[in-house]
Amino acid sequence: MSFLIKDAKNHIGQDVELKGWVFNKRSSGSIIFLQIRDGSGCIQAVIAKNEVSSESFNEAEKLIEESTIIAMGQIKEEPRSPYGFEMQIKDLKIISLSSEFPISKKEHGINFLLSLRHLWLRSQRQWAILRIRNQIINAINEFLQKEDYIKLDAPIITPAACEGTTTLFPVDYFGNKTFLSQSGQLYLEAGIASFGKCYDFGPTFRAEKSKTKRHLTEFWMMDAEAAFMEFNELLELEEKMIYYIIQEVLKNCKEELKIIERDTIPLEQIKLPFERLSYQETITKLQELGSDIKYGEDLGNDDETILMTHFKQPLFITKFPSTFKAFYFKRDSKDSNLTLSSDLLAPEGYGEVTGGGQREDDYQILLNRMNEEKLNIKDYEWYLDLRKYGSCPHSGFGLGLERIVAWICKLEHVRESIPFPRTIYRFTP
Amino acid sequence: MSFLIKDAKNHIGQDVELKGWVFNKRSSGSIIFLQIRDGSGCIQAVIAKNEVSSESFNEAEKLIEESTIIAMGQIKEEPRSPYGFEMQIKDLKIISLSSEFPISKKEHGINFLLSLRHLWLRSQRQWAILRIRNQIINAINEFLQKEDYIKLDAPIITPAACEGTTTLFPVDYFGNKTFLSQSGQLYLEAGIASFGKCYDFGPTFRAEKSKTKRHLTEFWMMDAEAAFMEFNELLELEEKMIYYIIQEVLKNCKEELKIIERDTIPLEQIKLPFERLSYQETITKLQELGSDIKYGEDLGNDDETILMTHFKQPLFITKFPSTFKAFYFKRDSKDSNLTLSSDLLAPEGYGEVTGGGQREDDYQILLNRMNEEKLNIKDYEWYLDLRKYGSCPHSGFGLGLERIVAWICKLEHVRESIPFPRTIYRFTP
Repeated sequence: MSFLIKDAKNHIGQDVELKGWVFNKRSSGSIIFLQIRDGSGCIQAVIAKNEVSSESFNEAEKLIEESTIIAMGQIKEEPRSPYGFEMQIKDLKIISLSSEFPISKKEHGINFLLSLRHLWLRSQRQWAILRIRNQIINAINEFLQKEDYIKLDAPIITPAACEGTTTLFPVDYFGNKTFLSQSGQLYLEAGIASFGKCYDFGPTFRAEKSKTKRHLTEFWMMDAEAAFMEFNELLELEEKMIYYIIQEVLKNCKEELKIIERDTIPLEQIKLPFERLSYQETITKLQELGSDIKYGEDLGNDDETILMTHFKQPLFITKFPSTFKAFYFKRDSKDSNLTLSSDLLAPEGYGEVTGGGQREDDYQILLNRMNEEKLNIKDYEWYLDLRKYGSCPHSGFGLGLERIVAWICKLEHVRESIPFPRTIYRFTP
Repeated sequence: MSFLIKDAKNHIGQDVELKGWVFNKRSSGSIIFLQIRDGSGCIQAVIAKNEVSSESFNEAEKLIEESTIIAMGQIKEEPRSPYGFEMQIKDLKIISLSSEFPISKKEHGINFLLSLRHLWLRSQRQWAILRIRNQIINAINEFLQKEDYIKLDAPIITPAACEGTTTLFPVDYFGNKTFLSQSGQLYLEAGIASFGKCYDFGPTFRAEKSKTKRHLTEFWMMDAEAAFMEFNELLELEEKMIYYIIQEVLKNCKEELKIIERDTIPLEQIKLPFERLSYQETITKLQELGSDIKYGEDLGNDDETILMTHFKQPLFITKFPSTFKAFYFKRDSKDSNLTLSSDLLAPEGYGEVTGGGQREDDYQILLNRMNEEKLNIKDYEWYLDLRKYGSCPHSGFGLGLERIVAWICKLEHVRESIPFPRTIYRFTP
């Protein structure tokens, strides 16, 4: 792998061999201008009839969009080019002449694009979004490893559910009924007694029939869990991580953010610490902002949007009533109807991006909760064991990768935030 | 999160607060010795009756293994301790008194341990293995990112199979029949036309009824794919990556390797480049070594073991006959019965750890292959598109994480190499 376009600045005046895709072509008879990409970046290449062999020029004339080529030529600085550099082609060979590319510059319907996702990925916008996704993944791993968390991959095939059984994908496991994991959290709670701090980061599945722009059936989730961590420390960890992710993207993805025309000012203005409102304060605020939500109701997508159009900074909503939070949340010692839970909402109208809390660490209280929820205790015996053999106060949170990507890239719909989205109607290509 | 045991050397002479699990206790009447772990490491703590309050000493007397505590005390250097440091306890509080821990020092059967995997993880050996796994994961990501590969997560829920249909787990997807992915490779081949180089790293699934010590039904796989990369460059990339992984583990996991009593000399002696034998040369060599394998047969686990007990370095076997390699491998231009494929076998009796090759990039040849294999072309139309719109020579490989972990840790069975193993008989806890 010799020359990459991203390194053009180190090759000014040199002859290089460029391998890539032609994504645009203009011709003025004796000069042909090619826009070429190689995955690392884009460059304009110029081929002049009277400066190359007739074979090379004939090849260039035959080119249509998405054809692959090998071009030999000299790199020059070119301030008029959006890429800053240009290649003066001396020799050109077609590797593969493309058929007419089905995605053109005109507007296409979303279903058409999704059914051609394997080709749509080539657009500059999709390239930029998925490179930002890659940067976010790196930032998450780096942050957690620096904080001494070790990656402990939770299983995908699981015998029981973490968040209710109605939204599970069943898997026939050699004749046994198992399910695709909705979250690795319970397994990480086992991990902390060995590793102190651990996380997973993998695909999770929810068979929700939601058709909102925030839902996928298959999405990537990071779950982190730490022994001896109490609720307030958890919120500090979460905000520090989100802040780190944003700084890394701003620093390392300048070109990508420009391609997707992201106004970066709202991201640059994010400051630590994030704001915190209790659930009760949030309800009051929402009512002020015109929502008809009542105390005791969970926030809907619309409420999150109202709230996060108002707030310019990420917002922790804390201490939700136990009625709509899972059995494993520890109750607030000041009010046992409340849980030590929190959701982090992203600004610019984006909603929940993380959710977490302190876990119940008392065996008997946890068992009672599970009985109240009519869970099959046998399925959770191993989880109860964690409170029987050296329990400790502990907390954790989950982060939805695609929601973070959607927010940071300011996407209309979460489906652009993952290479091959799976929604209620789509499981191809 | 204040003090961690791994930082003890920075706190000599200081009073610190230690939170952790007591995993061993010895008493000589007026002095109690506690072995404590906090996830980051282990330390011995000493509590003397005449130096602490009677409350603290009473607490210490009550302790049984796996109880959680908070201890306040001074860190001292202690050359006689295997950890090098000791804590002189001044104050001690029990957080949670454990029930009698079901895993004792005596030998347990493997089924007993696997059914208590959530507790077995706490053993020093499992701690060490899974921390080495974490280091290997980091090394893979670091290496690929430095080489300009971007992480492009392939989907798990897929409409068709990559490696034959007999070993698939079916998933009921809102009434449609889908399958759990066996490999992300085909999706990465779509990615290279946008990103040039990309990889995935996630769980993959094979419903194989194999009961060997090398098989799991759910395992983590890294797939990498690069545009314009030819077969020999691929082998160079693979060996460079494996070498990097080994160096990182040797450098960063000294304590873990000691705990599992890994003889590191065979790892230290690994050199670049790795040896390469063609399939034909391999058959000859195996016959010399006493195997009854014949030309045209695939290598079994036993053959791999014979071979890799003989070879002290990792070994590439290249150019397998097309009869037992998948349809997407490019044929050797010198002998069309052979494929540009390779398996990398690890020494010390370990077998295949990576597999890869150059992909067929010609539309018509690929289509013919798929028809020969009686694949449902409609399922693969999107994959054929990649040869229709700007095809290019390209190569890639897959790496089985658990097999690398098993080799580097010299494990008897791959089931210890993953936090919660899934085998034909086991999908709990």
